[in-house]
Amino acid sequence: MTRVDPALAAARTSVRAELADLAAAGGLGPGGLVLVACSGGADSLALAAVTAVEARRVGRSVRSRGYTVRAGAVVVDHGLQAGSDGVAARAARQCRELGLDPVVVRRVRVDDGPGTGGLEAAARAARYAVLDDVAREQGAAAVLLGHTLDDQAESVLLGLARGSGARSLAGMPSHRGAYRRPFLGLRRAQTEAACAALGLDFWTDPTNLLPDAAPDAAVPARTRVRGVVLPALEDALGPGVAEALARTADQLRDDADLLESLAAELLAAARMSDDLVTGVKPVSDTGDVALDAGVLAAAHPALRRRALRAAVLAAGCAPEATTARHVDALDALVVSWRGQGPVHLPGDARALRACGRLLLRPAPPRPNPRP
Amino acid sequence: MTRVDPALAAARTSVRAELADLAAAGGLGPGGLVLVACSGGADSLALAAVTAVEARRVGRSVRSRGYTVRAGAVVVDHGLQAGSDGVAARAARQCRELGLDPVVVRRVRVDDGPGTGGLEAAARAARYAVLDDVAREQGAAAVLLGHTLDDQAESVLLGLARGSGARSLAGMPSHRGAYRRPFLGLRRAQTEAACAALGLDFWTDPTNLLPDAAPDAAVPARTRVRGVVLPALEDALGPGVAEALARTADQLRDDADLLESLAAELLAAARMSDDLVTGVKPVSDTGDVALDAGVLAAAHPALRRRALRAAVLAAGCAPEATTARHVDALDALVVSWRGQGPVHLPGDARALRACGRLLLRPAPPRPNPRP
Repeated sequence: MTRVDPALAAARTSVRAELADLAAAGGLGPGGLVLVACSGGADSLALAAVTAVEARRVGRSVRSRGYTVRAGAVVVDHGLQAGSDGVAARAARQCRELGLDPVVVRRVRVDDGPGTGGLEAAARAARYAVLDDVAREQGAAAVLLGHTLDDQAESVLLGLARGSGARSLAGMPSHRGAYRRPFLGLRRAQTEAACAALGLDFWTDPTNLLPDAAPDAAVPARTRVRGVVLPALEDALGPGVAEALARTADQLRDDADLLESLAAELLAAARMSDDLVTGVKPVSDTGDVALDAGVLAAAHPALRRRALRAAVLAAGCAPEATTARHVDALDALVVSWRGQGPVHLPGDARALRACGRLLLRPAPPRPNPRP
Repeated sequence: MTRVDPALAAARTSVRAELADLAAAGGLGPGGLVLVACSGGADSLALAAVTAVEARRVGRSVRSRGYTVRAGAVVVDHGLQAGSDGVAARAARQCRELGLDPVVVRRVRVDDGPGTGGLEAAARAARYAVLDDVAREQGAAAVLLGHTLDDQAESVLLGLARGSGARSLAGMPSHRGAYRRPFLGLRRAQTEAACAALGLDFWTDPTNLLPDAAPDAAVPARTRVRGVVLPALEDALGPGVAEALARTADQLRDDADLLESLAAELLAAARMSDDLVTGVKPVSDTGDVALDAGVLAAAHPALRRRALRAAVLAAGCAPEATTARHVDALDALVVSWRGQGPVHLPGDARALRACGRLLLRPAPPRPNPRP
């Protein structure tokens, strides 16, 4: 009897459970399509290979032989490295050889101009736009992503630098909309072992490699976290750190979901209706929004700060420019009122306190720089 | 005009604000006593020096000359290193020379036997017991602790290894009970600079030093985090990481406070009154406690999991032995009930589901190993 490699078995179990969950939710019937986002790297190549097999027997059990769905792949060529078209073509060929169909290759244009949040964020935005497009064109029930527990742990550590609370440490959800991440419980090494067990030669992204030389400023933060920080943390705190980080992400995501929804309720309760605020336009007219300072002051700081941040974003301030210092200053207007002046917010928005109200004055609309 | 060293000025501002806050809260009148917990290290020696000065003019402002309070010190000798008595005696001498009075030296016995959570936790417990005692004996209004922003950042990273959510990342509060930490906004290097500016020769704890040789298993986790992990994180993510970690701690502490209080309300709502649970003793008799599974199932997972953990601790299970896996298993009894058997909890406690109830059966009382 052939022994199945344990990493491959774990990968199969994860994908089988994901497809069963999709089927149980009514989203994946016989002949339905799931797409795998494949870069040719170990994670997504293992995912493509395993999905091709598991798609043949969705919902198989002791009583049922299951049914067949179609497994396809999308390969996104970001065009950011020399030879990226060759990498994409090779990944697509491997997917076809694994029996995936359709296999769609799309080249994207990554625009990392001002306001896009940097190259990595711009590449991510372009990638998801393409995945959305292809999923819609092909009528896919789901798009599977190859993110592993290691990616999740790295996301938590990267989020620490932002220092903006639970949401920035909350990592990636196991599913959101059509996207699903069946490998979030698997280590990256398991996906490499699964590829090896299947004889699949995976691609290694050179930007994920730490140069042997002295640290180079061009190395992405995620690569440094992967190559230096996580190993140092495991050395300091013992094994199981990556798992603990992933668990932390899950718990903080739950916390953030609940706290944000409670903060939205608080904001709604604090928002004063137009007839109470004479001469002040409602926010829907991009005029001032008035909040009852007493309602905010009586709330728990964990909710008040979130409500204030949400109000600042609703006033049109850019999320990445809205810092803890802005929220601190608004909070002081609410709970430490000593007659201080207006608070300047990103993009020329302002907040001020008057007559027991916190007034948020949105930024004036800017002309679009690219008509 | 003499220029005050900026680090020393920052230290003074922090202590001045802390004493003013204590005074404003009505806890520190003229002639009152604040104690500084002093190890002789840079943080607490700077704190002792600055407190001795600031105690002479509490509440000074443009209108008021302020008043004098007494500043004393407590030096705890943990007796864990050869020559610890000499280190303690030297710290006490430095405190007396700085004008602190009284200066109390106490030697403690650190018991790191089974169930004490390791040497660092046992030393901490012994230290706080002595500080409590001396504060009571001397009638102190507050005990000042020298923890810095670096300590806070290290606590967050150490908490990551536990993977038990917001509370384990929440670090140290700026005050709790009689304890206050005026230096939580200061970097450790600032306390060293303040000592240098005052000509104070501070003690360096050898267990805080990373050996130049290969990492040694005897090096405490905190020392590795300080010497390797935090620098690696700053190298990967850029400067400001320690500040971001400290800010994270503050925000997650607020979150955890609110979520734990909401979870306590949920637990109270789910607890079934005795007359509804025939034949089941209330938890006050160390009998079973019955929770309404329907009430729990309807709650948000962030609250349900906290309520379940609180119920397990109320059933007498040790907090350090109660893991996320235990909570997961209980949660499955509530939300994924398929007739599964009882869940075994730490210390022979158990949980089982029957008739729509979650029953928690406390651990049988153990004979005290040390009569």
